[in-house]
Amino acid sequence: MIEFENYPLCQGGVCAAKGFVAGGVNAEIKPGNKKRDLAVIACEKKCTAAALYTQNKVKGAPITVTKEHLADGYAQAVIVNSGNANTCNDNGIEIATEMCRLCAEGLKLSENDIIVASTGVIGQKLSIDPVKNNISALISSLDSKSSTLACEAIMTTDTRKKELAISFELDGKVCHIGGISKGSGMINPNMATMLAFITTDADINSAMLEKALRTVTAKTYNMVSVDGDTSTNDMVCIMASGLAGNDPITCEDEHYLTFVNGLYAVMMNLARETARDGEGATKLLECVVNNAPTEKVAKSVALSVINSSLLKAAMFAADANWGRILCAIGYAEGDFDINGVEVILSSRAGSVKVCEKGAGVEFSEDEAFKVLSEDEIKIIIDLHSGNDNAIAWGCDLTYEYVKINAEYRS
Amino acid sequence: MIEFENYPLCQGGVCAAKGFVAGGVNAEIKPGNKKRDLAVIACEKKCTAAALYTQNKVKGAPITVTKEHLADGYAQAVIVNSGNANTCNDNGIEIATEMCRLCAEGLKLSENDIIVASTGVIGQKLSIDPVKNNISALISSLDSKSSTLACEAIMTTDTRKKELAISFELDGKVCHIGGISKGSGMINPNMATMLAFITTDADINSAMLEKALRTVTAKTYNMVSVDGDTSTNDMVCIMASGLAGNDPITCEDEHYLTFVNGLYAVMMNLARETARDGEGATKLLECVVNNAPTEKVAKSVALSVINSSLLKAAMFAADANWGRILCAIGYAEGDFDINGVEVILSSRAGSVKVCEKGAGVEFSEDEAFKVLSEDEIKIIIDLHSGNDNAIAWGCDLTYEYVKINAEYRS
Repeated sequence: MIEFENYPLCQGGVCAAKGFVAGGVNAEIKPGNKKRDLAVIACEKKCTAAALYTQNKVKGAPITVTKEHLADGYAQAVIVNSGNANTCNDNGIEIATEMCRLCAEGLKLSENDIIVASTGVIGQKLSIDPVKNNISALISSLDSKSSTLACEAIMTTDTRKKELAISFELDGKVCHIGGISKGSGMINPNMATMLAFITTDADINSAMLEKALRTVTAKTYNMVSVDGDTSTNDMVCIMASGLAGNDPITCEDEHYLTFVNGLYAVMMNLARETARDGEGATKLLECVVNNAPTEKVAKSVALSVINSSLLKAAMFAADANWGRILCAIGYAEGDFDINGVEVILSSRAGSVKVCEKGAGVEFSEDEAFKVLSEDEIKIIIDLHSGNDNAIAWGCDLTYEYVKINAEYRS
Repeated sequence: MIEFENYPLCQGGVCAAKGFVAGGVNAEIKPGNKKRDLAVIACEKKCTAAALYTQNKVKGAPITVTKEHLADGYAQAVIVNSGNANTCNDNGIEIATEMCRLCAEGLKLSENDIIVASTGVIGQKLSIDPVKNNISALISSLDSKSSTLACEAIMTTDTRKKELAISFELDGKVCHIGGISKGSGMINPNMATMLAFITTDADINSAMLEKALRTVTAKTYNMVSVDGDTSTNDMVCIMASGLAGNDPITCEDEHYLTFVNGLYAVMMNLARETARDGEGATKLLECVVNNAPTEKVAKSVALSVINSSLLKAAMFAADANWGRILCAIGYAEGDFDINGVEVILSSRAGSVKVCEKGAGVEFSEDEAFKVLSEDEIKIIIDLHSGNDNAIAWGCDLTYEYVKINAEYRS
């Protein structure tokens, strides 16, 4: 698994890539709200851009507007609010369009180059007034050191900021990829999950940018689940300024692969942080499936395990109830021999094999409890039925999850 | 919806049908356990019989043995333990076979006429000793008034007994259908869910009995979900003694339809009670989907809503967060126009329309809170896209669910 071996981390988040500035303010999108809730990211030049959207049939109005604006493969700025999803409102499109107009006016850009997103409660009217009243302050907050302000402004039930940037080289030119993302509940893979905004100064055309985004999303954001609920407002978008000065990427050459690997490092780690910050979570779960007959089966098994409420509750209690892992493997899609399955539980505290050839093996419950008491747990499953692999990320199920979601709207 | 209008309830549970006796004892299947955990149901004559099983690839050993024994369409007794699932054990088949042998010996029947089932923790060795040591006591407990003992003995995390019987007429002959079932966690539809044992004295051949069971299971047990986890040991079985004396049912005539309706009344209500007794539940949720393009779409929407952790947590808090219902409808399978959707929340305390044409409508939050504070909530969804309907049952998600499943094994 690629983590960061080859990619030096750098400061600046979404502003690490040349040409980008960001900002965020409190606009009281939800009346009385005191945290930042309106964010902007902008580039000094027009970027190639691509996005993937939720597959939920109910789509937030901003999704529809953004799709239209990205049809030409270019964008120059993002405006996004938290506190209201602008979804299932009869004037949603009007509001999303007006947000773009206000942002374009403030930045002296074309409306068609603005990406718009909203996150928060579904089905509550969103007034344009908080945006209108705060657009000047928002534009004034734009700075190359303010990625964190934008990151804060898109958070809802998130407890951790999800922001990072890396650097790498293309043709001897230093390139950057940085991103911010939000997401804690209503998280389940379906082509694009959560809100994530990625920027890069690599020079890459729109078609290759979309291809890279799709490839990496399938292995990162689409392999995360907190609660099995697919949001109506999910969006992952990327803008490339080209200011790094590399030769433009226009086909699947080795430079494209370098770029994809860098993008994977950023998106995988943002996705992983989303799972760690799952609503109410005390533990990050990482399910690694090895030696599956196909990648599809490997993914299905990994997601099936990560989504099991019973297993998630057992992990909360650091209980090595591996029968629940076998049960979840058993209802995953795909053909494989359940009698070949091996399961290892692993963490910084050690590793314990709990199941071999589909049946239990003797293990020390004390040892397993120690392993599962850590805050990052790996569940390593070997299907012994092929050569394909997958990883999925999730979290434990806790009292706090119930509390957050029993009280979210009020 | 058929509830019991046409079916007088009667006493006796699984012994209401002529010819059946039942019993249950404490055998300490799990060392130190003090509740009844070994049950038996037997008939004075050989019955036509049918069963449906879990579709989980991991299957309890008793499933394999029962399938073999029911291959000829006949059975005469059931033996079942709680406290251990006899699943993922290398000697599981041996143990399940020996349970049948001991039961057959005690009842002077053929081993091939015994149905065996187990429920409890997966992946722990099951010793035959508790069964061997208590088989005489178990057989001695058999009585036509002891359905409740068997019902108690199959419970695990269940807090309510699920037992009922009805009567109806075929050719002027009084027939009965009765059943007991267990299930509270690891409940998710997949052809057969939970353990349920149904008996009848109607005369019906094995083929029609299986057909009836399959038809009714699709609309009852397969439309229940507590937590989205499909168990490894699910089984629904039915035995028909024929002692009511009706003309044998051998084809899909009107008598078959009468039988199917009676079976629906029993199984629907047992299934509904399972949802009500979902682990940690404080509320029964019933999702009714009307005017869908196909029954498949109606079922998918109903199950999608019933399975949403976010909606389940909102229902726990009596919070009319209908955006979560729209979100769940949106990721259901099938083609329909989301802009036609209407949602009504309903209970004994009244009804509140919260959504029309896919968007929110004005409603009183106080009124909605009153409606949702009851312990039986109906979520009525009109898709306005066809004529097909479905109902699914579930429950709210509570702190207690997490507690039960964080502590189940220990």
